[in-house]
Amino acid sequence: MTIEDVQKHPDARNMPINKVGIKDIRHPFAFNDKDSRQQATVGTFNMSVNLPHDQKGTHMSRFVALLNEDCQQLSIQSFGALLKAMVAKLEADTGFITANFLYFINKSAPVSGVKSLLDYQIQLKGEWANGKAKIEIKIIVPVTSLCPCSKKISDYGAHNQRSHITVDALINETVFIEDIIQLIESQASSELFSLLKRPDEKHVTELAYDNPKFVEDVVRDVANALNENELISAYTLEAENFESIHNHSAYAVIENNKQT
Amino acid sequence: MTIEDVQKHPDARNMPINKVGIKDIRHPFAFNDKDSRQQATVGTFNMSVNLPHDQKGTHMSRFVALLNEDCQQLSIQSFGALLKAMVAKLEADTGFITANFLYFINKSAPVSGVKSLLDYQIQLKGEWANGKAKIEIKIIVPVTSLCPCSKKISDYGAHNQRSHITVDALINETVFIEDIIQLIESQASSELFSLLKRPDEKHVTELAYDNPKFVEDVVRDVANALNENELISAYTLEAENFESIHNHSAYAVIENNKQT
Amino acid sequence: MTIEDVQKHPDARNMPINKVGIKDIRHPFAFNDKDSRQQATVGTFNMSVNLPHDQKGTHMSRFVALLNEDCQQLSIQSFGALLKAMVAKLEADTGFITANFLYFINKSAPVSGVKSLLDYQIQLKGEWANGKAKIEIKIIVPVTSLCPCSKKISDYGAHNQRSHITVDALINETVFIEDIIQLIESQASSELFSLLKRPDEKHVTELAYDNPKFVEDVVRDVANALNENELISAYTLEAENFESIHNHSAYAVIENNKQT
Amino acid sequence: MTIEDVQKHPDARNMPINKVGIKDIRHPFAFNDKDSRQQATVGTFNMSVNLPHDQKGTHMSRFVALLNEDCQQLSIQSFGALLKAMVAKLEADTGFITANFLYFINKSAPVSGVKSLLDYQIQLKGEWANGKAKIEIKIIVPVTSLCPCSKKISDYGAHNQRSHITVDALINETVFIEDIIQLIESQASSELFSLLKRPDEKHVTELAYDNPKFVEDVVRDVANALNENELISAYTLEAENFESIHNHSAYAVIENNKQT
Repeated sequence: MTIEDVQKHPDARNMPINKVGIKDIRHPFAFNDKDSRQQATVGTFNMSVNLPHDQKGTHMSRFVALLNEDCQQLSIQSFGALLKAMVAKLEADTGFITANFLYFINKSAPVSGVKSLLDYQIQLKGEWANGKAKIEIKIIVPVTSLCPCSKKISDYGAHNQRSHITVDALINETVFIEDIIQLIESQASSELFSLLKRPDEKHVTELAYDNPKFVEDVVRDVANALNENELISAYTLEAENFESIHNHSAYAVIENNKQT
Repeated sequence: MTIEDVQKHPDARNMPINKVGIKDIRHPFAFNDKDSRQQATVGTFNMSVNLPHDQKGTHMSRFVALLNEDCQQLSIQSFGALLKAMVAKLEADTGFITANFLYFINKSAPVSGVKSLLDYQIQLKGEWANGKAKIEIKIIVPVTSLCPCSKKISDYGAHNQRSHITVDALINETVFIEDIIQLIESQASSELFSLLKRPDEKHVTELAYDNPKFVEDVVRDVANALNENELISAYTLEAENFESIHNHSAYAVIENNKQT
Repeated sequence: MTIEDVQKHPDARNMPINKVGIKDIRHPFAFNDKDSRQQATVGTFNMSVNLPHDQKGTHMSRFVALLNEDCQQLSIQSFGALLKAMVAKLEADTGFITANFLYFINKSAPVSGVKSLLDYQIQLKGEWANGKAKIEIKIIVPVTSLCPCSKKISDYGAHNQRSHITVDALINETVFIEDIIQLIESQASSELFSLLKRPDEKHVTELAYDNPKFVEDVVRDVANALNENELISAYTLEAENFESIHNHSAYAVIENNKQT
Repeated sequence: MTIEDVQKHPDARNMPINKVGIKDIRHPFAFNDKDSRQQATVGTFNMSVNLPHDQKGTHMSRFVALLNEDCQQLSIQSFGALLKAMVAKLEADTGFITANFLYFINKSAPVSGVKSLLDYQIQLKGEWANGKAKIEIKIIVPVTSLCPCSKKISDYGAHNQRSHITVDALINETVFIEDIIQLIESQASSELFSLLKRPDEKHVTELAYDNPKFVEDVVRDVANALNENELISAYTLEAENFESIHNHSAYAVIENNKQT
């Protein structure tokens, strides 16, 4: 007995579809970054391809098969090959994959040197078109920001808070996540750590006070650093301060496409 | 033609059900608090009743009918009547309603006096059993906390951050939400405001620096205030600091049941 | 005593900022749609303006003041005036506002005619540039989808599920939200209702079975309807099925810019 | 130079604290379940201890140190030792740890036998008191539910949807997560799979239609199975249907403490 393939039916509406696929599927994999270090993580994937005007549906199960068969390891360098394999398996022209996952760096506290893991939210975004891959990476880096106005106008103290600096960049595939994170952290009032001994806490408190920055300062300083990095060809950059004196955020955005 | 009522079928599994009903239904209503002031808001409701062992199912549509017919206005004082009406409509013995919504207070900035709305997440929780209602309220109050250790050990500055103080209290129905919020805010390093002019920002910065508190201090001080309030007979109280120097929270919990 | 205005300081980095402002501030307002009907709701707002290269910071408190002073009522028609007022108050050239809120329609069940409210997530997005406003609206419409493949290959039954059809459209300001929602709902396997009596449940069950659609069918049919609507000049349209047989979604996207 | 230890200061408020610690810290680890199979995953942890009335604060950094030093591997069997180590390190009497993470099972499709991973949300919850550990596990199992009323009253078809069956159980530490999941899945209208070929899709469609269940039926049938399992001594069990014909859920709860 053969079972009819409804998806393969012709379609008369004359309407091509930009993207069709699967969304929010969870999948574990090992991620490789700098110095070939590998870390195990769990990703949430969206995978899609184009669909020509004359075909009723795509074959959704092939996306899942690809993930289970060909995605035990992942890196920025291998992401293009995954896109190419997907487009081939789905018999499509263009393809899109996004993978969201947590990435950890084993940081040393600034004075004591004690080690602890800090987590970063990463989104790898790839597009396959005209026979080649375009890779973007979005990184959310949590930092401390300390308000220059509050410091200036107050007799003592200054409000500060956790902030997110988010970079969404079109990258050369030789870039390392860890390097972008360090570039970003060095522009904040202070970077964060999971584990701080008292001498470390004294250090980061005074460092932030010595280094006050508005969201406007943060995006300008990170933009300046991104502009000088040749592995990044375009970016959208956002800083968001979860204000300690308000119940809303302050935020700022700079966009730059070096290619135009 | 009559349509069979499957829910009314008998059930032979001899298994009563504690709660059966609807979850995450959105509904707009006007909420009344202190001085009979009314504010329009949108709630997310869960509504359920018990089901005896010998009945196959409850009548889910009656919960929705009750919400659409009898829930244009809501207050702590009227919540018991809503519970009673639900249990009657569903022909049940016990009933449970939770309503989550945002509540606004029009606050005056501490120096300039300029007015702005600040939002608070509220959960009203009611249980009907043995012919009477038990009403609990959960309030999340966003505040500033400033770290005593960071202040003490640093030559200048002190890390501070937005924090949530959450009180889940068994209440007498004559209590006002606004009064509980003020009780909580007065125990933080500083309360929050949506709109602060520069003299206000100077004030809250210095106030927080003069008033450093660990999460431990916050829960102890709020607990002390709750213990003295006769309209509250039991509570679970949590403080959570979204640490500006870490990517995780510090938190503390005190529970007290005055009735035991 | 005057307090220094740090934000007004000059800035030498020669770096203009695309957007700077406030994010995730909650605010209650009355929304006006078709037939001048007004409904009270609570929104979450982002508000931002550009900042020239030579100014250190924007004046964040002015956004909050605008919201508290000038935003008790909102409609698609009035959104442009709010943008214009913001840009004037912040002394900027360009401005952006997004407002997310729940919108309710009082629907009649298809057979019994019984009334109940159904909720829709709305995002109003406005941009002010070159002295005029561009208004977009994003609407998430929850519907039922029933799988044509499952129906065709099975001897009985067919898997179906709740789906979201999301339209993000550049609109003429005379459009009504309610009309776009009806346009979308009429293309699903069935629309949703909060309250259904048994004859209604029979109706929607059979309607969905008579009207099977893949995500691909849904986006094609909604796209066709949007193409014919002259009040919409560009759109991104997504259908997402929360598959009842998988733990992930199926989705499809069609984009169309009629202006190019 | 010694840095003052503010947390160690005495406290005069005479107010012991039930729980104090850290919340929402992310940490990668390897989880061991049945047949000593190990899977890499990423967890979100809350860790706390009691604080006596006469001590100002706890030592938050010790929780983070414990996680980084002693938590590369985790299992239900080892969770008690982690609790014991934490309470010792913090010099406390009682301790609490919750760990939330995704767990994967490599399932075979029902007809084709093709393999794919399905994900489950797990929460391990441990409490240390009186020198011993109490371990609870919460598992969210996504399944298909098909409505018996819709099937009965309709000439053809039946609405169905994805549902969550959540079991929060006090367990004997010899229990395996995989066994509880299978116990739960066998009581649904159908279990879910990430990858289904057409013969598999026909199978699960017909299986669900042959096996209609209300949320009430699901909780009764799962409760019956849990009652017979001697490794589970108490549980709260919830079924939630993300109704395909409504924009809200239907849900039911059964609680049972076999020890009383």
